Amino acid sequence: MTKKVLKFGGTSVGSIERIVHAAKIVKKEHSQGNEIIVVVSAMAGKTNELISQSNSISNKFDKRELDVLLSSGEQVTSALMAGALNELGVKSKSWMNWQIPILTTGHNTNSRIININVENINTYLSEGGVAIIPGFQGISSSGDITTIGRGGSDASAVAIAKIFNTDSCEIYTDVDGVYSTDPNKVPVAKKIDKISYEEMLELASLGARVMQASAIQTAKMYDIPLQVRSTFTDRKGTKIFSEENIDYTKMVTGVAYSKNDAKITLIGVPDKPGVAADIFEPLDKNQINVDMVIQNVSSDGKTTDLTFTVKRNDFNKTLNTINSNKKIKFKNLSHNDKVSKISIVGAGMVTTPGVTFKTFRALADENINILAISTSEIKLSVIISEDDTLKAVKKLHTTFDLD
Amino acid sequence: MTKKVLKFGGTSVGSIERIVHAAKIVKKEHSQGNEIIVVVSAMAGKTNELISQSNSISNKFDKRELDVLLSSGEQVTSALMAGALNELGVKSKSWMNWQIPILTTGHNTNSRIININVENINTYLSEGGVAIIPGFQGISSSGDITTIGRGGSDASAVAIAKIFNTDSCEIYTDVDGVYSTDPNKVPVAKKIDKISYEEMLELASLGARVMQASAIQTAKMYDIPLQVRSTFTDRKGTKIFSEENIDYTKMVTGVAYSKNDAKITLIGVPDKPGVAADIFEPLDKNQINVDMVIQNVSSDGKTTDLTFTVKRNDFNKTLNTINSNKKIKFKNLSHNDKVSKISIVGAGMVTTPGVTFKTFRALADENINILAISTSEIKLSVIISEDDTLKAVKKLHTTFDLD
Repeated sequence: MTKKVLKFGGTSVGSIERIVHAAKIVKKEHSQGNEIIVVVSAMAGKTNELISQSNSISNKFDKRELDVLLSSGEQVTSALMAGALNELGVKSKSWMNWQIPILTTGHNTNSRIININVENINTYLSEGGVAIIPGFQGISSSGDITTIGRGGSDASAVAIAKIFNTDSCEIYTDVDGVYSTDPNKVPVAKKIDKISYEEMLELASLGARVMQASAIQTAKMYDIPLQVRSTFTDRKGTKIFSEENIDYTKMVTGVAYSKNDAKITLIGVPDKPGVAADIFEPLDKNQINVDMVIQNVSSDGKTTDLTFTVKRNDFNKTLNTINSNKKIKFKNLSHNDKVSKISIVGAGMVTTPGVTFKTFRALADENINILAISTSEIKLSVIISEDDTLKAVKKLHTTFDLD
Repeated sequence: MTKKVLKFGGTSVGSIERIVHAAKIVKKEHSQGNEIIVVVSAMAGKTNELISQSNSISNKFDKRELDVLLSSGEQVTSALMAGALNELGVKSKSWMNWQIPILTTGHNTNSRIININVENINTYLSEGGVAIIPGFQGISSSGDITTIGRGGSDASAVAIAKIFNTDSCEIYTDVDGVYSTDPNKVPVAKKIDKISYEEMLELASLGARVMQASAIQTAKMYDIPLQVRSTFTDRKGTKIFSEENIDYTKMVTGVAYSKNDAKITLIGVPDKPGVAADIFEPLDKNQINVDMVIQNVSSDGKTTDLTFTVKRNDFNKTLNTINSNKKIKFKNLSHNDKVSKISIVGAGMVTTPGVTFKTFRALADENINILAISTSEIKLSVIISEDDTLKAVKKLHTTFDLD
């Protein structure tokens, strides 16, 4: 007997027809003898519609009430899914978070799941029932409805998989898996069959929006096998698990990119302790999310150059913050608000030399200038001019045999 | 300190603008030192939309799940109302039925409220908070979400007023009160300032759809003063309370009518015990709702004529049921599926002779033929040809000084 969480995202339950289609997938899995917990998102567009309604009332709409409002979206899908399964002859029941209960900690609109009472649902599953749970929500210790952040249905699914100790957690979505790069822009992009949590995390945070990064993080922490697959095709999807289960034949798994970046370089910053903190603390206070940070080795032992990237819509705010920061000194400030970040990701990179060299050679062959470089164990990122983005992605995709 | 229930119907919360407008009414009442519990319906059209979605999945959609689905409508309005009040600077909080809890008995989609835990909300009210409660729902003793029938938000408001022992229960709606007849059809119709529960019940069941009959019944049983008033004007509305509080200066309070009726007469039915039961039992089994029943006195002591009315869309089913009923005998069957029922209602009728005579004379003056007559203590109904409906209503309205 295999126990599974099947999670259906917003587009997978975006209409009555799609809910019925998803119910048929659940029926098939159930008929194969699996114990099934279904986690559902709100119907595509619903959460945005509700947020827009709350914004029409107030731009600082009460957060407790916002959670009451937003949680209704998944409640509707849960009831429709349970009804659809019953119509298909599958015993099924929706379980609101307060009925289970699913306990969260943290603040309204930004909670996280800490405990789930598994007893009643486990009994129901053992009696052949399919349990439907609305994702993205829970209740606080004081009995208020809470939500766990936008896109949080993935996090719900993983937490439920963890606490119910299921054998897998399958994320049904509108793409049929994780690709080596954006298939809409690079037609030779390939679906990845297996990928490690770490690689998936790098890809997720780099704009491959297949799953929420925090959900992958939780799955990694508790070693919960994930599978991303399409609701609309029968293709196998992408399996996400820990590195040791993957036999790396290629050193690079995928090429990701993000546009809308901006680069700022402070030239001639005093090279002494505390300077970086003085630079970044005011940025953090102004809620500017700093992405890459590169500090060159000090050549004269006295000053250094410090480069960092931010999102383009934070660019002006960043410059203002830097210029009005009286605690820092620098000789010069250079900036470029039309850059993009290209990243090659692969757990195989750790053990394979030559990735860095090959990357630089490939970009040089295309006459692409590298503005900044940053590396981690499984990732190499370069900042280049935005105009060169697609050319660089295609070249690297070919260079690392991903076509 | 006055404690009030303010209930807002679907059209009163039918858009964000209207919710904000309703919140301003609540704010005004609250600022006058009243303790306020607000009961809200789903936004106009929402419940029908959800029912339509469930029907697309199944024409016998699971009733437990239907209640989970439908209850989301009032949940959304509650959150938006609480958010709107907070935005207006009024301390406010939504209370889902399971958070209170509001306990119901009966079956899914057809429950009724039996108990409410008042403690937490009373504390909140005494601290100056406005409590928002979604109408039309509760939870069962087994912890399932239940609903209390279509239009049940009125019943919720009255039950909440009763159990919280409030001083009044104000029903905000899209009309500014109860009228002496339909103001859309008879321009001289007048708003009634005060009306008894009994008269209101007769008017409600006769097509003046201002409030649900069952809610009026509950208010009558526990002597809870009601007030029906418009969300969109400042007019006083109609107060509904027990008869002894009303000084009747007119014998007739209003003229109601219902179209879409059909009349069936069985001529020459044996006049002996059990015959009526034999006629109506199969109708009940076929879910045909019989309205008026009139049996004439037997002239020969052996047979009698029996007339009854049904809704027009039950007409064919009724004829088929009668004709296939082997237990009954009659000489002839006459029917007319284009009739309407005109009713004059007034608690003052009991003590005032002449109403019956005046009614018949008035209709005769207009050359309107009366097909059947039925009377109760506070009501006189006649069946006439549908074409004469408006002429009869206007004439009776004038006859009884209601213009």
